[in-house]
Amino acid sequence: MAKKTEIIAIGNELISGDVVDTNSAYISQELLKLGMETSFHSSIGDVKEDIKNAIQTALTRSDLIFITGGLGPTDDDITAQIVSEALNREFVLDEKIWEHIQATITKMNRPIDSFNKKQAYIPQGAKYFLNYSGTAPCIFIEENHKKIFLLPGVPSEVKYFIQNDIKPYLNSKIKNSIKVKKIKLSGIAEAKVNEVIKDIVDKNEATIAFLPKSSELILKITAQSTEESISNKIIDKTSNEIILRLKEYVFGFDDDSIEVIIKKLLTEKKKTVSVAESCTGGLISKILTDVSGSSEYISMNVTTYSNEAKMELLEVKEKTLEQYGAVSEQTAQEMAEGIKRLSQSDFGLSITGIAGPTGGSEEKPVGLVFVGITDGKNTQIEKFLFPPKLPRTEIRTRAAHKALHLLKDFINNSST
Amino acid sequence: MAKKTEIIAIGNELISGDVVDTNSAYISQELLKLGMETSFHSSIGDVKEDIKNAIQTALTRSDLIFITGGLGPTDDDITAQIVSEALNREFVLDEKIWEHIQATITKMNRPIDSFNKKQAYIPQGAKYFLNYSGTAPCIFIEENHKKIFLLPGVPSEVKYFIQNDIKPYLNSKIKNSIKVKKIKLSGIAEAKVNEVIKDIVDKNEATIAFLPKSSELILKITAQSTEESISNKIIDKTSNEIILRLKEYVFGFDDDSIEVIIKKLLTEKKKTVSVAESCTGGLISKILTDVSGSSEYISMNVTTYSNEAKMELLEVKEKTLEQYGAVSEQTAQEMAEGIKRLSQSDFGLSITGIAGPTGGSEEKPVGLVFVGITDGKNTQIEKFLFPPKLPRTEIRTRAAHKALHLLKDFINNSST
Repeated sequence: MAKKTEIIAIGNELISGDVVDTNSAYISQELLKLGMETSFHSSIGDVKEDIKNAIQTALTRSDLIFITGGLGPTDDDITAQIVSEALNREFVLDEKIWEHIQATITKMNRPIDSFNKKQAYIPQGAKYFLNYSGTAPCIFIEENHKKIFLLPGVPSEVKYFIQNDIKPYLNSKIKNSIKVKKIKLSGIAEAKVNEVIKDIVDKNEATIAFLPKSSELILKITAQSTEESISNKIIDKTSNEIILRLKEYVFGFDDDSIEVIIKKLLTEKKKTVSVAESCTGGLISKILTDVSGSSEYISMNVTTYSNEAKMELLEVKEKTLEQYGAVSEQTAQEMAEGIKRLSQSDFGLSITGIAGPTGGSEEKPVGLVFVGITDGKNTQIEKFLFPPKLPRTEIRTRAAHKALHLLKDFINNSST
Repeated sequence: MAKKTEIIAIGNELISGDVVDTNSAYISQELLKLGMETSFHSSIGDVKEDIKNAIQTALTRSDLIFITGGLGPTDDDITAQIVSEALNREFVLDEKIWEHIQATITKMNRPIDSFNKKQAYIPQGAKYFLNYSGTAPCIFIEENHKKIFLLPGVPSEVKYFIQNDIKPYLNSKIKNSIKVKKIKLSGIAEAKVNEVIKDIVDKNEATIAFLPKSSELILKITAQSTEESISNKIIDKTSNEIILRLKEYVFGFDDDSIEVIIKKLLTEKKKTVSVAESCTGGLISKILTDVSGSSEYISMNVTTYSNEAKMELLEVKEKTLEQYGAVSEQTAQEMAEGIKRLSQSDFGLSITGIAGPTGGSEEKPVGLVFVGITDGKNTQIEKFLFPPKLPRTEIRTRAAHKALHLLKDFINNSST
């Protein structure tokens, strides 16, 4: 039987639906990078019997088991203890973990509580990785050639342990060859892509999954074989063929994001950009600055919500606002020119629109958005109409991504 | 044995982690509104044996089973067929479903394909709800007093069936009363809250779950009984007792968010606010403007990343930046005063810090953040130290929420 991998997420907040479990998807994606596929995800509440049953089922069908959640300091956090019971091991205090927890809490200027000691207990014989982004350690148990990792439920702590401890550990142990490559497209519909590459998909040498996301489409190509060189060859052949046919829509690969592509472009060209936002209210600025080092090419961004702010900061003309309104081609243009002038950047990007759910009219419905970009010589204005029934956050997210993709193309084509 | 509810999500894209399963959380939240709690969520791939095992396990432990995904027209969609096999029922064509599918496809101007006929097959004796937002019907099977619903995997179709068919159906069958109330806290650690309300938790009249989220902690109180008036009484009694003990940390209830609370406060007081951000790069502006109608109390926000931008837009003194640095109490203060002046708002909020992963030093490590707030008369500056190993996005998110909570308290206490 092939080795199976399973992820169990524990917490009442998960099965009640208060919190969506994103940890399992994250862990599976990271394992796939090591060539390991996952077979089962499950979520259960903080219920002793359910947890015990889930662990016992996992031990019968899987060799690699990840359990997230239920390692907190409070009484309903019982994962580590139940695992101890399920494996018939004593539940013991580890002094080194306890010291580390005390040091961590002290560093955060918080009082040490008797509750916190609970997080220093582990099943007898278990190993662990200390937590440098929270308090609960990652507990690691080997039992009859099966490996069990217990992780906290906080997503940032899961990421920390997977990247810093678990992936390096597993990488040193496991040899198999699944290779994955993602090709990231924008400006083309899913059905059209399907038509253009249907023969490649049908050939079935590699698996090609279509993953739409905001205004982007990700093609995920997976190749599997017993030898790394063969997997690599399949990936290269398939992706080269796809890129050849769709090259004008490809904006990146794998972990590339539009904000990282923009960073690369601006860094290469030694150029700077500034953004003036209205309907997106800071979202574009937030996305651009999600990238570490973005201060190299961004000195300032502004959100000008009111007409007064548009006039004062960006020198949008009162007459323009009166005649065409704040959501118009003309205002978008003056905003783009205004932010370039104010910031003395090489590129000025602007966005103005109606994110809803209120504020729309027959002439200017919810979902209407104008994006402006200028390099001082040329100015481009684009109009978008997003479905008005979409939630406010979705309209803002799509509009922000459209603007960023336009910016990328504009920088590429600019002679500045 | 109590009646248990279980949700199974089927699809390779789920266990690979390419797509996060949000359907299960959605269904659980909707069931809770009918007074029904969920015990298990699981996700499995499009693998015959795994699906069969999951169904058989579900039949042994649950009375109400929802299965989403795998009802599409393509070859890897095998859910309905496997359920037929697992229940030892024939898999038969239903002419009425087939007619409805053909009519739906014709209405969309698409050609009818032999593939589509597959979606008209159901286990012998099953009932169904026709799909008016897609093609695959919702199949409904009763087996030994257990109920099984098969739903498509597309979230919008799941929502459609749950709201229009399944909830009305279940509502007519089931009598029970679960009531839920959420109390939202900030500025207090989970362990401390646990200590303060331990006796209430232990009394076990109502279930109290701890849901930490960024720099907030949500207490979710659930009461269950055969009568609505009793459930309500338990909720009121429990929440009043908790609020009494923790009132200085309570900032809202149920669907309240910090940005909505700030909206309420500012609208009540007829006041305005503007934000000058550095390390959060527009995130605070984005959160504040996530609220529809925020243009009533926000005219502008700025992200001043460079020293030049801080000096030009906010009139931060060159001497201050030289002497204390951009990440300092003094700069935070001048930024807050500067944005209040520039925007002519009643409150000015500023934030400056090091979001990492680079840019830290021994004296000023990654995670160091200063928040400043002024109403023109009083200025408050707070220093935070987030764990330096946290990812950049997490430091930014926590810092933004801390700043928003400080703002809320400041507005509350301000005599302006």
